[in-house]
Amino acid sequence: MNERPTAACLIIGDEILTGKIHDVNSHVLAQVLFDRGVRLMRIETIPDDVEGIAEAVARLAKQFTWVFTSGGIGPTHDDKTYEGVARAFGRELVVHRELLARMEGRFRSRFGAEAEFGSARTRMATLPEGAQLWVDWDRDWIPLVVVANVHVLPGVPELFAKMVRDAAHRFAGPKIHRRRIYTHRSEGDIADLLSEAQTQNPAVAIGSYPRFDTEAYQVMVTLEGEDPDAVEALKNALLGGLGGFERPEQG
Amino acid sequence: MNERPTAACLIIGDEILTGKIHDVNSHVLAQVLFDRGVRLMRIETIPDDVEGIAEAVARLAKQFTWVFTSGGIGPTHDDKTYEGVARAFGRELVVHRELLARMEGRFRSRFGAEAEFGSARTRMATLPEGAQLWVDWDRDWIPLVVVANVHVLPGVPELFAKMVRDAAHRFAGPKIHRRRIYTHRSEGDIADLLSEAQTQNPAVAIGSYPRFDTEAYQVMVTLEGEDPDAVEALKNALLGGLGGFERPEQG
Repeated sequence: MNERPTAACLIIGDEILTGKIHDVNSHVLAQVLFDRGVRLMRIETIPDDVEGIAEAVARLAKQFTWVFTSGGIGPTHDDKTYEGVARAFGRELVVHRELLARMEGRFRSRFGAEAEFGSARTRMATLPEGAQLWVDWDRDWIPLVVVANVHVLPGVPELFAKMVRDAAHRFAGPKIHRRRIYTHRSEGDIADLLSEAQTQNPAVAIGSYPRFDTEAYQVMVTLEGEDPDAVEALKNALLGGLGGFERPEQG
Repeated sequence: MNERPTAACLIIGDEILTGKIHDVNSHVLAQVLFDRGVRLMRIETIPDDVEGIAEAVARLAKQFTWVFTSGGIGPTHDDKTYEGVARAFGRELVVHRELLARMEGRFRSRFGAEAEFGSARTRMATLPEGAQLWVDWDRDWIPLVVVANVHVLPGVPELFAKMVRDAAHRFAGPKIHRRRIYTHRSEGDIADLLSEAQTQNPAVAIGSYPRFDTEAYQVMVTLEGEDPDAVEALKNALLGGLGGFERPEQG
Protein backbone atom coordinates (compact mmCIF):
# COMPACT_ATOMS: atom_id res chain seq x y z
CA MET A 1 0.00 0.00 0.00
CA ASN A 2 1.25 3.49 -0.79
CA GLU A 3 1.78 6.06 1.88
CA ARG A 4 -1.64 7.46 2.62
CA PRO A 5 -1.98 10.91 4.21
CA THR A 6 -4.01 11.06 7.39
CA ALA A 7 -6.23 13.68 8.95
CA ALA A 8 -8.06 14.63 12.12
CA CYS A 9 -11.12 16.82 12.56
CA LEU A 10 -11.49 18.99 15.65
CA ILE A 11 -14.97 20.34 16.28
CA ILE A 12 -14.86 23.21 18.76
CA GLY A 13 -18.26 23.93 20.17
CA ASP A 14 -20.23 23.88 23.39
CA GLU A 15 -23.33 23.99 21.18
CA ILE A 16 -22.61 20.46 19.94
CA LEU A 17 -21.82 19.07 23.41
CA THR A 18 -24.98 20.55 24.91
CA GLY A 19 -27.13 19.12 22.13
CA LYS A 20 -28.27 22.45 20.74
CA ILE A 21 -26.80 21.80 17.32
CA HIS A 22 -26.13 18.56 15.44
CA ASP A 23 -22.68 18.72 13.88
CA VAL A 24 -22.73 18.14 10.13
CA ASN A 25 -19.27 19.55 9.36
CA SER A 26 -17.34 16.42 10.32
CA HIS A 27 -19.53 14.39 7.98
CA VAL A 28 -18.90 16.73 5.05
CA LEU A 29 -15.17 16.63 5.78
CA ALA A 30 -15.22 12.81 6.03
CA GLN A 31 -16.86 12.52 2.62
CA VAL A 32 -14.50 14.99 0.96
CA LEU A 33 -11.38 13.39 2.46
CA PHE A 34 -12.50 9.88 1.49
CA ASP A 35 -13.01 11.04 -2.09
CA ARG A 36 -9.54 12.56 -2.03
CA GLY A 37 -7.88 9.40 -0.72
CA VAL A 38 -7.08 10.88 2.68
CA ARG A 39 -7.66 8.73 5.75
CA LEU A 40 -9.64 10.58 8.41
CA MET A 41 -8.38 8.95 11.60
CA ARG A 42 -10.37 10.74 14.26
CA ILE A 43 -12.98 13.35 15.02
CA GLU A 44 -12.93 15.09 18.38
CA THR A 45 -15.54 17.48 19.70
CA ILE A 46 -14.40 19.67 22.59
CA PRO A 47 -15.65 22.73 24.52
CA ASP A 48 -14.92 26.40 23.83
CA ASP A 49 -11.88 26.41 26.08
CA VAL A 50 -8.48 27.80 25.12
CA GLU A 51 -6.41 25.26 27.07
CA GLY A 52 -8.41 22.33 25.70
CA ILE A 53 -8.15 23.63 22.13
CA ALA A 54 -4.39 24.16 22.49
CA GLU A 55 -3.88 20.64 23.87
CA ALA A 56 -5.95 18.98 21.14
CA VAL A 57 -4.43 20.99 18.28
CA ALA A 58 -0.86 20.35 19.42
CA ARG A 59 -1.47 16.62 19.85
CA LEU A 60 -3.39 16.09 16.59
CA ALA A 61 -0.99 18.23 14.53
CA LYS A 62 1.89 15.99 15.63
CA GLN A 63 0.01 12.78 15.00
CA PHE A 64 -1.60 13.35 11.58
CA THR A 65 -0.73 14.83 8.21
CA TRP A 66 -3.46 17.45 8.34
CA VAL A 67 -5.82 18.83 10.98
CA PHE A 68 -9.09 20.60 10.26
CA THR A 69 -10.84 22.64 12.94
CA SER A 70 -14.44 23.80 12.88
CA GLY A 71 -15.86 26.69 14.86
CA GLY A 72 -14.80 29.35 17.31
CA ILE A 73 -13.54 32.02 14.89
CA GLY A 74 -16.34 34.60 15.17
CA PRO A 75 -16.22 37.94 16.97
CA THR A 76 -17.84 36.93 20.28
CA HIS A 77 -16.40 36.03 23.67
CA ASP A 78 -17.00 32.30 23.10
CA ASP A 79 -14.79 32.27 19.98
CA LYS A 80 -11.41 31.02 21.17
CA THR A 81 -9.96 28.94 18.36
CA TYR A 82 -7.27 31.35 17.10
CA GLU A 83 -6.05 31.80 20.66
CA GLY A 84 -5.97 28.02 21.18
CA VAL A 85 -4.13 27.38 17.91
CA ALA A 86 -1.60 30.11 18.69
CA ARG A 87 -0.94 28.56 22.08
CA ALA A 88 -0.62 25.08 20.56
CA PHE A 89 2.31 26.30 18.46
CA GLY A 90 3.73 28.77 20.98
CA ARG A 91 2.95 31.70 18.71
CA GLU A 92 1.66 35.18 19.42
CA LEU A 93 -1.70 36.49 18.26
CA VAL A 94 -1.24 39.41 15.87
CA VAL A 95 -3.60 41.49 13.78
CA HIS A 96 -3.33 40.40 10.15
CA ARG A 97 -3.23 43.77 8.39
CA GLU A 98 -4.37 42.59 4.96
CA LEU A 99 -7.26 40.59 6.37
CA LEU A 100 -8.32 43.48 8.60
CA ALA A 101 -8.25 45.88 5.65
CA ARG A 102 -10.33 43.48 3.53
CA MET A 103 -12.85 43.02 6.33
CA GLU A 104 -13.13 46.73 6.97
CA GLY A 105 -13.49 47.42 3.25
CA ARG A 106 -16.31 44.91 2.94
CA PHE A 107 -17.98 46.27 6.06
CA ARG A 108 -17.82 49.89 4.81
CA SER A 109 -19.15 48.97 1.37
CA ARG A 110 -22.17 47.34 3.02
CA PHE A 111 -22.89 49.67 5.91
CA GLY A 112 -21.30 52.96 4.88
CA ALA A 113 -18.22 54.92 5.84
CA GLU A 114 -19.72 56.09 9.13
CA ALA A 115 -20.66 52.67 10.54
CA GLU A 116 -18.67 51.48 13.53
CA PHE A 117 -16.46 48.51 12.65
CA GLY A 118 -15.65 47.87 16.29
CA SER A 119 -13.04 45.99 18.22
CA ALA A 120 -15.03 42.74 18.27
CA ARG A 121 -14.71 42.36 14.50
CA THR A 122 -10.99 43.00 14.77
CA ARG A 123 -10.79 39.77 16.77
CA MET A 124 -11.68 37.93 13.55
CA ALA A 125 -8.51 39.29 11.94
CA THR A 126 -6.31 38.58 14.96
CA LEU A 127 -4.50 35.39 13.97
CA PRO A 128 -1.61 33.23 15.15
CA GLU A 129 1.63 34.81 13.95
CA GLY A 130 2.73 33.47 10.57
CA ALA A 131 -0.73 32.23 9.61
CA GLN A 132 -1.27 31.82 5.88
CA LEU A 133 -4.50 32.79 4.16
CA TRP A 134 -5.99 30.62 1.43
CA VAL A 135 -8.42 32.91 -0.27
CA ASP A 136 -9.56 34.28 -3.60
CA TRP A 137 -10.79 37.75 -2.71
CA ASP A 138 -12.82 37.91 -5.92
CA ARG A 139 -14.90 35.01 -4.69
CA ASP A 140 -14.57 34.63 -0.91
CA TRP A 141 -15.25 36.86 2.05
CA ILE A 142 -13.61 34.59 4.61
CA PRO A 143 -10.12 33.15 4.15
CA LEU A 144 -9.15 29.65 5.15
CA VAL A 145 -6.53 30.29 7.82
CA VAL A 146 -3.65 27.82 7.86
CA VAL A 147 -1.15 27.48 10.70
CA ALA A 148 1.47 24.81 10.00
CA ASN A 149 -0.65 21.75 9.09
CA VAL A 150 -3.77 23.04 10.86
CA HIS A 151 -6.65 24.38 8.77
CA VAL A 152 -9.00 26.66 10.66
CA LEU A 153 -12.57 26.67 9.37
CA PRO A 154 -15.77 28.36 10.52
CA GLY A 155 -18.46 26.33 12.26
CA VAL A 156 -21.33 27.71 10.20
CA PRO A 157 -22.21 24.68 8.05
CA GLU A 158 -22.71 26.35 4.68
CA LEU A 159 -19.37 28.19 5.00
CA PHE A 160 -17.56 25.11 6.27
CA ALA A 161 -18.81 22.94 3.40
CA LYS A 162 -18.01 25.53 0.73
CA MET A 163 -14.52 26.17 2.04
CA VAL A 164 -13.66 22.48 2.42
CA ARG A 165 -14.82 21.75 -1.12
CA ASP A 166 -12.94 24.74 -2.52
CA ALA A 167 -9.74 23.56 -0.82
CA ALA A 168 -10.21 19.84 -1.50
CA HIS A 169 -7.81 19.76 -4.47
CA ARG A 170 -4.94 20.56 -2.09
CA PHE A 171 -5.36 17.28 -0.23
CA ALA A 172 -4.79 13.99 -1.99
CA GLY A 173 -3.75 10.41 -1.44
CA PRO A 174 -4.06 7.23 -3.49
CA LYS A 175 -7.67 6.87 -4.58
CA ILE A 176 -9.82 4.47 -2.56
CA HIS A 177 -12.33 2.38 -4.49
CA ARG A 178 -15.58 1.37 -2.82
CA ARG A 179 -18.26 -1.16 -3.68
CA ARG A 180 -21.40 -1.97 -1.71
CA ILE A 181 -23.35 -5.18 -1.41
CA TYR A 182 -26.80 -5.32 0.21
CA THR A 183 -28.44 -8.45 1.58
CA HIS A 184 -31.62 -9.56 3.31
CA ARG A 185 -29.62 -12.05 5.37
CA SER A 186 -28.69 -11.18 8.95
CA GLU A 187 -25.21 -10.24 10.15
CA GLY A 188 -25.06 -13.40 12.27
CA ASP A 189 -25.54 -15.52 9.16
CA ILE A 190 -22.90 -13.82 7.03
CA ALA A 191 -20.30 -13.10 9.70
CA ASP A 192 -18.20 -16.22 9.12
CA LEU A 193 -18.09 -15.67 5.37
CA LEU A 194 -17.03 -12.04 5.82
CA SER A 195 -14.42 -12.91 8.41
CA GLU A 196 -12.88 -15.51 6.11
CA ALA A 197 -12.97 -13.06 3.18
CA GLN A 198 -11.26 -10.38 5.28
CA THR A 199 -8.49 -12.78 6.27
CA GLN A 200 -7.96 -13.81 2.64
CA ASN A 201 -8.06 -10.21 1.35
CA PRO A 202 -6.20 -7.98 3.78
CA ALA A 203 -5.85 -5.19 1.19
CA VAL A 204 -9.63 -4.71 0.95
CA ALA A 205 -11.37 -3.35 4.05
CA ILE A 206 -14.69 -5.11 4.58
CA GLY A 207 -17.35 -3.34 6.62
CA SER A 208 -20.74 -4.68 7.70
CA TYR A 209 -23.63 -2.38 8.69
CA PRO A 210 -27.01 -3.73 9.80
CA ARG A 211 -30.26 -1.80 9.61
CA PHE A 212 -33.55 -2.55 11.28
CA ASP A 213 -35.63 0.34 10.00
CA THR A 214 -36.11 -0.67 6.38
CA GLU A 215 -37.34 -3.65 4.40
CA ALA A 216 -34.96 -2.81 1.57
CA TYR A 217 -32.08 -4.77 3.06
CA GLN A 218 -30.82 -6.03 6.38
CA VAL A 219 -27.08 -5.52 6.02
CA MET A 220 -24.94 -3.26 3.85
CA VAL A 221 -21.48 -4.70 3.22
CA THR A 222 -18.81 -2.30 1.98
CA LEU A 223 -15.53 -3.16 0.27
CA GLU A 224 -12.79 -0.53 0.12
CA GLY A 225 -9.30 -0.72 -1.28
CA GLU A 226 -6.73 0.91 -3.52
CA ASP A 227 -6.79 -1.76 -6.24
CA PRO A 228 -10.07 -1.42 -8.16
CA ASP A 229 -9.69 -4.88 -9.67
CA ALA A 230 -9.26 -6.47 -6.24
CA VAL A 231 -12.33 -4.66 -4.92
CA GLU A 232 -14.40 -5.63 -7.94
CA ALA A 233 -13.23 -9.25 -7.84
CA LEU A 234 -14.05 -9.57 -4.14
CA LYS A 235 -17.46 -8.03 -4.72
CA ASN A 236 -18.18 -10.61 -7.43
CA ALA A 237 -16.86 -13.43 -5.27
CA LEU A 238 -19.06 -12.42 -2.31
CA LEU A 239 -22.33 -11.60 -4.09
CA GLY A 240 -23.49 -15.20 -4.31
CA GLY A 241 -22.49 -16.29 -0.82
CA LEU A 242 -24.12 -13.23 0.72
CA GLY A 243 -27.34 -13.63 -1.25
CA GLY A 244 -26.45 -10.07 -2.18
CA PHE A 245 -27.48 -7.37 -4.60
CA GLU A 246 -25.80 -4.13 -5.58
CA ARG A 247 -28.74 -1.74 -5.23
CA PRO A 248 -31.47 -1.90 -2.61
CA GLU A 249 -35.01 -1.78 -4.00
CA GLN A 250 -35.86 1.15 -1.74
CA GLY A 251 -34.94 3.16 1.36
CA MET B 1 -21.92 25.61 41.60
CA ASN B 2 -22.75 22.07 42.65
CA GLU B 3 -20.65 19.15 41.61
CA ARG B 4 -21.79 18.29 38.11
CA PRO B 5 -21.16 14.81 36.69
CA THR B 6 -19.30 14.69 33.41
CA ALA B 7 -19.40 12.35 30.42
CA ALA B 8 -17.61 11.40 27.24
CA CYS B 9 -18.99 9.78 24.11
CA LEU B 10 -16.84 7.39 22.10
CA ILE B 11 -18.10 6.63 18.61
CA ILE B 12 -16.40 3.53 17.23
CA GLY B 13 -16.80 3.27 13.51
CA ASP B 14 -14.84 3.32 10.28
CA GLU B 15 -18.20 4.02 8.60
CA ILE B 16 -18.33 7.48 10.19
CA LEU B 17 -14.69 8.32 9.40
CA THR B 18 -15.04 7.26 5.76
CA GLY B 19 -18.17 9.37 5.35
CA LYS B 20 -20.52 6.46 4.63
CA ILE B 21 -22.73 7.21 7.60
CA HIS B 22 -23.50 10.46 9.42
CA ASP B 23 -23.35 9.85 13.16
CA VAL B 24 -26.56 10.82 14.94
CA ASN B 25 -25.93 8.94 18.18
CA SER B 26 -23.66 11.53 19.77
CA HIS B 27 -26.32 14.17 19.16
CA VAL B 28 -29.03 12.08 20.84
CA LEU B 29 -26.72 11.43 23.77
CA ALA B 30 -25.83 15.14 24.02
CA GLN B 31 -29.49 16.10 24.21
CA VAL B 32 -30.34 13.43 26.80
CA LEU B 33 -27.34 14.27 29.01
CA PHE B 34 -28.06 18.00 28.86
CA ASP B 35 -31.64 17.35 29.96
CA ARG B 36 -30.31 15.23 32.82
CA GLY B 37 -27.86 17.89 34.00
CA VAL B 38 -24.78 15.91 32.95
CA ARG B 39 -21.96 17.80 31.24
CA LEU B 40 -20.84 16.06 28.04
CA MET B 41 -17.18 17.08 27.84
CA ARG B 42 -16.06 15.41 24.64
CA ILE B 43 -17.05 13.24 21.72
CA GLU B 44 -14.39 11.16 19.99
CA THR B 45 -14.83 9.15 16.81
CA ILE B 46 -12.19 6.48 16.22
CA PRO B 47 -11.61 3.51 13.87
CA ASP B 48 -12.55 -0.14 14.44
CA ASP B 49 -9.21 -0.93 16.05
CA VAL B 50 -8.77 -2.82 19.34
CA GLU B 51 -5.70 -0.90 20.50
CA GLY B 52 -7.27 2.46 19.72
CA ILE B 53 -10.50 1.54 21.47
CA ALA B 54 -8.61 0.31 24.55
CA GLU B 55 -6.53 3.50 24.72
CA ALA B 56 -9.55 5.80 24.38
CA VAL B 57 -11.75 3.87 26.83
CA ALA B 58 -9.04 3.72 29.49
CA ARG B 59 -8.26 7.43 29.15
CA LEU B 60 -11.87 8.65 29.08
CA ALA B 61 -13.00 6.35 31.91
CA LYS B 62 -10.35 7.90 34.16
CA GLN B 63 -11.16 11.44 33.17
CA PHE B 64 -14.97 11.56 33.29
CA THR B 65 -17.80 10.32 35.49
CA TRP B 66 -19.37 8.23 32.73
CA VAL B 67 -18.37 7.03 29.28
CA PHE B 68 -20.79 5.97 26.55
CA THR B 69 -19.59 4.00 23.55
CA SER B 70 -21.46 3.52 20.28
CA GLY B 71 -20.88 0.73 17.80
CA GLY B 72 -18.73 -2.33 17.29
CA ILE B 73 -20.77 -4.89 19.24
CA GLY B 74 -22.24 -6.94 16.39
CA PRO B 75 -21.21 -10.43 15.29
CA THR B 76 -18.86 -9.52 12.43
CA HIS B 77 -15.07 -9.27 12.20
CA ASP B 78 -15.17 -5.46 12.33
CA ASP B 79 -16.92 -5.49 15.73
CA LYS B 80 -14.13 -4.99 18.27
CA THR B 81 -15.58 -2.92 21.08
CA TYR B 82 -15.90 -5.60 23.76
CA GLU B 83 -12.32 -6.65 23.12
CA GLY B 84 -11.16 -3.05 23.35
CA VAL B 85 -13.08 -2.38 26.57
CA ALA B 86 -11.76 -5.59 28.12
CA ARG B 87 -8.22 -4.56 27.28
CA ALA B 88 -8.79 -1.05 28.65
CA PHE B 89 -9.53 -2.56 32.07
CA GLY B 90 -7.11 -5.49 31.87
CA ARG B 91 -9.99 -7.97 31.93
CA GLU B 92 -10.56 -11.23 30.08
CA LEU B 93 -13.32 -11.77 27.54
CA VAL B 94 -15.73 -14.44 28.75
CA VAL B 95 -18.99 -15.82 27.44
CA HIS B 96 -21.85 -14.41 29.51
CA ARG B 97 -23.97 -17.53 30.06
CA GLU B 98 -27.26 -15.82 30.79
CA LEU B 99 -26.96 -13.48 27.81
CA LEU B 100 -26.02 -16.36 25.53
CA ALA B 101 -29.00 -18.40 26.72
CA ARG B 102 -31.34 -15.44 26.15
CA MET B 103 -29.94 -14.84 22.68
CA GLU B 104 -30.18 -18.50 21.73
CA GLY B 105 -33.70 -18.70 23.10
CA ARG B 106 -34.79 -15.70 21.05
CA PHE B 107 -33.07 -17.09 17.96
CA ARG B 108 -34.74 -20.50 18.28
CA SER B 109 -38.16 -18.99 18.84
CA ARG B 110 -37.79 -17.03 15.61
CA PHE B 111 -35.99 -19.49 13.36
CA GLY B 112 -36.77 -22.90 14.88
CA ALA B 113 -34.90 -25.47 16.90
CA GLU B 114 -32.90 -26.69 13.91
CA ALA B 115 -31.47 -23.32 12.81
CA GLU B 116 -27.75 -22.85 13.28
CA PHE B 117 -26.99 -20.24 15.93
CA GLY B 118 -23.33 -20.17 15.02
CA SER B 119 -20.12 -19.02 16.62
CA ALA B 120 -20.40 -15.50 15.19
CA ARG B 121 -23.50 -14.77 17.28
CA THR B 122 -21.72 -16.09 20.35
CA ARG B 123 -19.28 -13.17 19.93
CA MET B 124 -22.16 -10.88 20.86
CA ALA B 125 -22.41 -12.60 24.26
CA THR B 126 -18.65 -12.60 24.84
CA LEU B 127 -18.12 -9.71 27.23
CA PRO B 128 -15.41 -8.25 29.44
CA GLU B 129 -15.31 -10.26 32.67
CA GLY B 130 -17.53 -8.79 35.36
CA ALA B 131 -19.70 -6.84 32.91
CA GLN B 132 -23.14 -5.93 34.23
CA LEU B 133 -26.27 -6.12 32.11
CA TRP B 134 -28.93 -3.42 32.34
CA VAL B 135 -31.93 -5.06 30.76
CA ASP B 136 -35.59 -5.82 31.19
CA TRP B 137 -35.99 -9.07 29.30
CA ASP B 138 -39.74 -8.54 29.01
CA ARG B 139 -39.07 -5.44 26.93
CA ASP B 140 -35.54 -5.53 25.49
CA TRP B 141 -33.67 -7.91 23.25
CA ILE B 142 -30.27 -6.28 23.74
CA PRO B 143 -28.87 -5.45 27.18
CA LEU B 144 -26.93 -2.31 27.94
CA VAL B 145 -23.52 -3.70 28.90
CA VAL B 146 -21.75 -1.80 31.66
CA VAL B 147 -18.08 -2.25 32.56
CA ALA B 148 -17.05 -0.03 35.47
CA ASN B 149 -18.24 3.45 34.38
CA VAL B 150 -18.32 2.56 30.66
CA HIS B 151 -21.69 2.00 28.98
CA VAL B 152 -21.49 -0.02 25.78
CA LEU B 153 -24.22 0.75 23.26
CA PRO B 154 -24.95 -0.45 19.74
CA GLY B 155 -24.25 1.83 16.79
CA VAL B 156 -27.60 1.23 15.09
CA PRO B 157 -29.32 4.58 15.67
CA GLU B 158 -32.80 3.42 16.64
CA LEU B 159 -31.36 0.98 19.20
CA PHE B 160 -28.88 3.52 20.53
CA ALA B 161 -31.56 6.17 21.01
CA LYS B 162 -34.01 3.81 22.68
CA MET B 163 -31.42 2.39 25.06
CA VAL B 164 -30.04 5.81 26.03
CA ARG B 165 -33.53 7.12 26.77
CA ASP B 166 -34.45 4.00 28.75
CA ALA B 167 -31.31 4.40 30.88
CA ALA B 168 -31.46 8.20 31.19
CA HIS B 169 -32.97 8.17 34.69
CA ARG B 170 -29.74 6.59 35.98
CA PHE B 171 -27.71 9.69 35.11
CA ALA B 172 -28.39 12.99 36.79
CA GLY B 173 -26.80 16.23 37.86
CA PRO B 174 -28.16 19.62 38.89
CA LYS B 175 -30.67 20.73 36.28
CA ILE B 176 -29.43 23.25 33.70
CA HIS B 177 -31.87 25.95 32.63
CA ARG B 178 -31.68 27.34 29.12
CA ARG B 179 -33.18 30.39 27.44
CA ARG B 180 -32.72 31.53 23.86
CA ILE B 181 -32.76 35.01 22.36
CA TYR B 182 -32.84 35.59 18.61
CA THR B 183 -31.81 38.78 16.87
CA HIS B 184 -31.52 40.27 13.39
CA ARG B 185 -28.38 42.11 14.45
CA SER B 186 -24.98 40.70 13.49
CA GLU B 187 -22.53 39.02 15.85
CA GLY B 188 -20.05 41.84 15.33
CA ASP B 189 -22.60 44.35 16.60
CA ILE B 190 -23.60 42.44 19.75
CA ALA B 191 -20.23 40.97 20.68
CA ASP B 192 -19.23 43.71 23.14
CA LEU B 193 -22.56 43.56 24.92
CA LEU B 194 -22.36 39.76 25.24
CA SER B 195 -18.77 39.87 26.41
CA GLU B 196 -19.64 42.38 29.13
CA ALA B 197 -22.68 40.32 30.17
CA GLN B 198 -20.56 37.17 30.38
CA THR B 199 -18.01 38.90 32.59
CA GLN B 200 -20.79 40.21 34.87
CA ASN B 201 -22.60 36.86 35.01
CA PRO B 202 -20.02 34.08 35.25
CA ALA B 203 -22.64 31.56 36.46
CA VAL B 204 -24.62 31.80 33.22
CA ALA B 205 -22.93 30.44 30.09
CA ILE B 206 -23.63 32.71 27.13
CA GLY B 207 -23.35 31.23 23.63
CA SER B 208 -23.67 33.05 20.31
CA TYR B 209 -24.52 31.22 17.06
CA PRO B 210 -24.82 33.03 13.73
CA ARG B 211 -26.79 31.72 10.77
CA PHE B 212 -26.67 32.87 7.18
CA ASP B 213 -29.24 30.54 5.66
CA THR B 214 -32.45 32.02 7.06
CA GLU B 215 -34.21 35.38 7.21
CA ALA B 216 -35.77 34.46 10.56
CA TYR B 217 -32.81 35.68 12.57
CA GLN B 218 -29.10 36.32 12.25
CA VAL B 219 -27.84 35.20 15.64
CA MET B 220 -29.18 32.84 18.30
CA VAL B 221 -27.93 33.67 21.78
CA THR B 222 -28.26 30.99 24.44
CA LEU B 223 -28.13 31.41 28.21
CA GLU B 224 -27.51 28.36 30.37
CA GLY B 225 -27.15 28.07 34.12
CA GLU B 226 -28.25 26.29 37.25
CA ASP B 227 -30.18 29.18 38.75
CA PRO B 228 -33.40 29.63 36.76
CA ASP B 229 -33.93 33.12 38.17
CA ALA B 230 -30.44 34.23 37.12
CA VAL B 231 -30.98 32.87 33.60
CA GLU B 232 -34.39 34.52 33.32
CA ALA B 233 -33.12 37.83 34.69
CA LEU B 234 -30.20 37.90 32.28
CA LYS B 235 -32.53 37.09 29.39
CA ASN B 236 -34.75 40.02 30.32
CA ALA B 237 -31.75 42.29 30.77
CA LEU B 238 -30.32 41.39 27.34
CA LEU B 239 -33.49 41.38 25.23
CA GLY B 240 -33.55 45.13 24.69
CA GLY B 241 -29.85 45.64 24.05
CA LEU B 242 -29.78 42.79 21.56
CA GLY B 243 -32.90 43.95 19.73
CA GLY B 244 -33.93 40.41 20.53
CA PHE B 245 -37.02 38.23 20.50
CA GLU B 246 -37.70 34.86 22.07
CA ARG B 247 -39.14 33.03 19.07
CA PRO B 248 -38.04 33.36 15.48
CA GLU B 249 -40.87 34.02 13.00
CA GLN B 250 -39.79 31.07 10.89
CA GLY B 251 -37.06 28.55 10.10
